[in-house]
Amino acid sequence: MWTLPPTDSVLHVLSFIAVAAQSMTAALAAGKRSMDWAGVCMLGAITALGGGTIRDVLLGHYPLVWVAHPIYLVIAGVAALVTIALARLVVRLNLAFLVLDAIGLVVFTMAGCDVAWQVGVPVAIVIVSGMITGCAGGVLRDILCNEVPLLFRSELYASVSVVTGLFYAAALRLQLNDTLWAVLLTFVLGLTFRLLAIRYKWEMPKFVFSGEER
Amino acid sequence: MWTLPPTDSVLHVLSFIAVAAQSMTAALAAGKRSMDWAGVCMLGAITALGGGTIRDVLLGHYPLVWVAHPIYLVIAGVAALVTIALARLVVRLNLAFLVLDAIGLVVFTMAGCDVAWQVGVPVAIVIVSGMITGCAGGVLRDILCNEVPLLFRSELYASVSVVTGLFYAAALRLQLNDTLWAVLLTFVLGLTFRLLAIRYKWEMPKFVFSGEER
Amino acid sequence: MWTLPPTDSVLHVLSFIAVAAQSMTAALAAGKRSMDWAGVCMLGAITALGGGTIRDVLLGHYPLVWVAHPIYLVIAGVAALVTIALARLVVRLNLAFLVLDAIGLVVFTMAGCDVAWQVGVPVAIVIVSGMITGCAGGVLRDILCNEVPLLFRSELYASVSVVTGLFYAAALRLQLNDTLWAVLLTFVLGLTFRLLAIRYKWEMPKFVFSGEER
Repeated sequence: MWTLPPTDSVLHVLSFIAVAAQSMTAALAAGKRSMDWAGVCMLGAITALGGGTIRDVLLGHYPLVWVAHPIYLVIAGVAALVTIALARLVVRLNLAFLVLDAIGLVVFTMAGCDVAWQVGVPVAIVIVSGMITGCAGGVLRDILCNEVPLLFRSELYASVSVVTGLFYAAALRLQLNDTLWAVLLTFVLGLTFRLLAIRYKWEMPKFVFSGEER
Repeated sequence: MWTLPPTDSVLHVLSFIAVAAQSMTAALAAGKRSMDWAGVCMLGAITALGGGTIRDVLLGHYPLVWVAHPIYLVIAGVAALVTIALARLVVRLNLAFLVLDAIGLVVFTMAGCDVAWQVGVPVAIVIVSGMITGCAGGVLRDILCNEVPLLFRSELYASVSVVTGLFYAAALRLQLNDTLWAVLLTFVLGLTFRLLAIRYKWEMPKFVFSGEER
Repeated sequence: MWTLPPTDSVLHVLSFIAVAAQSMTAALAAGKRSMDWAGVCMLGAITALGGGTIRDVLLGHYPLVWVAHPIYLVIAGVAALVTIALARLVVRLNLAFLVLDAIGLVVFTMAGCDVAWQVGVPVAIVIVSGMITGCAGGVLRDILCNEVPLLFRSELYASVSVVTGLFYAAALRLQLNDTLWAVLLTFVLGLTFRLLAIRYKWEMPKFVFSGEER
């Protein structure tokens, strides 16, 4: 959908990995709620593709990526089914999954910025578009699992997406010689930030309030 | 919205019945949560029309059916209100409602396939479009009732929709002399499949997992 | 987005107030669930802008208001952050907030009717569009806080929106000399109705049902 001539192939492969990783973490969440196999597939696909879908609907950017390229649906579904078979292994590879999920966050964020850029919206919306693409799928997963979204409560995640988007937008604006460098630099920066946040449990301060609000 | 010349009128009447049936089951769910009358109407309308709405938004297919034909909103709202008055009767007619709901599932699925077909998307998306139209309304109902969607956990429902869609797409492709036959055959097949699934409690295998996933 | 020449500026200012008020009440709800600061901002923005967003997506009315004018996002975010700092004060000003929220309901309803009117849909949909704009943000808030939407259970809220919309549509139809009067009359009527509903705890009758529905 988004076409950065030289970097397209790299982002393309990374986006397949990101879709698979997010679908697999969603499948584990589905397993904790004893969903059936069809449910696991659906939750995986909604989580992996939901962020981009919400972005495209909000920007009026049609056709949706997975409508034009159903291969994304297939990847998400297959990844979810594989998770059923390999659940124990997937959990043991927890660390690998956190890294894959972080890759997903950064790649989706850049893709979301690219799409918004092409649609031609204010730069603030470019950042928001990146954040929605990176984060909204997980929010849908948590709503469907009947939980308050983790996004609103745990380690830096949306913030990583915003910082990644800001850096990416700045790099593209400055036309760092060619776009490839902007993409690579942003990727390394965003990924490092997220992994450090997980490692050192960086969290936002919380707003705890127990007033008698109606 | 979708116009199959000879079968239009049949599908039209069936779709009214389907909207009413889905609104009535949603109204019962609303009653279990002590919603007020306005809430019952809204939940009924969202459940009955939500699947088609999500499909149209995802495909960029405007105007939405109920925006162009508000009669669907009226039917859903009236059906919900009637349920308030006749709740005991509705429950006693449980079997009739399961049949009506199954009719709704099959009719909505075919309607969803038709719309996607007209928009001109890959055949995989035609099937997905049918499934979303048939199933997403119930997912919205369960989210608004604060429950993990039944769709992800109970007897074959999404699967019936997928099989119905596959058969329908195949029948239309083969141009079974005229479309009327494709519609009727699909209708009988889908309905039979769903009713058998209810009768014999056919379920997908479940993915039960209790790992220490984050 | 909507442009009523003489009244535009008044509705504009009121809509800023409405966005801020709805974001602040959402922030308090976020605080009760110990969300972090980013979560508070996101919940505030989603609540304050969600109604208009859902309306625009359903009507296919692009670009969305906050995409074209990111100032709305800024107001919602800042209002949410201010609430974190001033939570105790905000609660003590509970009454003021109920009034601000009521202003928001009425202003959003009128704005929603205006947009639908411009898009050119049946009059029934104009009313529904007003109701969605006024009420859907709060439904999103409750879903994200993992609760059955208050809208479906508490004092007159959606009903106030419908009555406001009906009166507004009637006044515009009758071309009450100029639109300014239609806006002002509707504003006073809607606000009075909502405040009376809060004061005297006017509620819809509830549908309580405990049958063995599946």
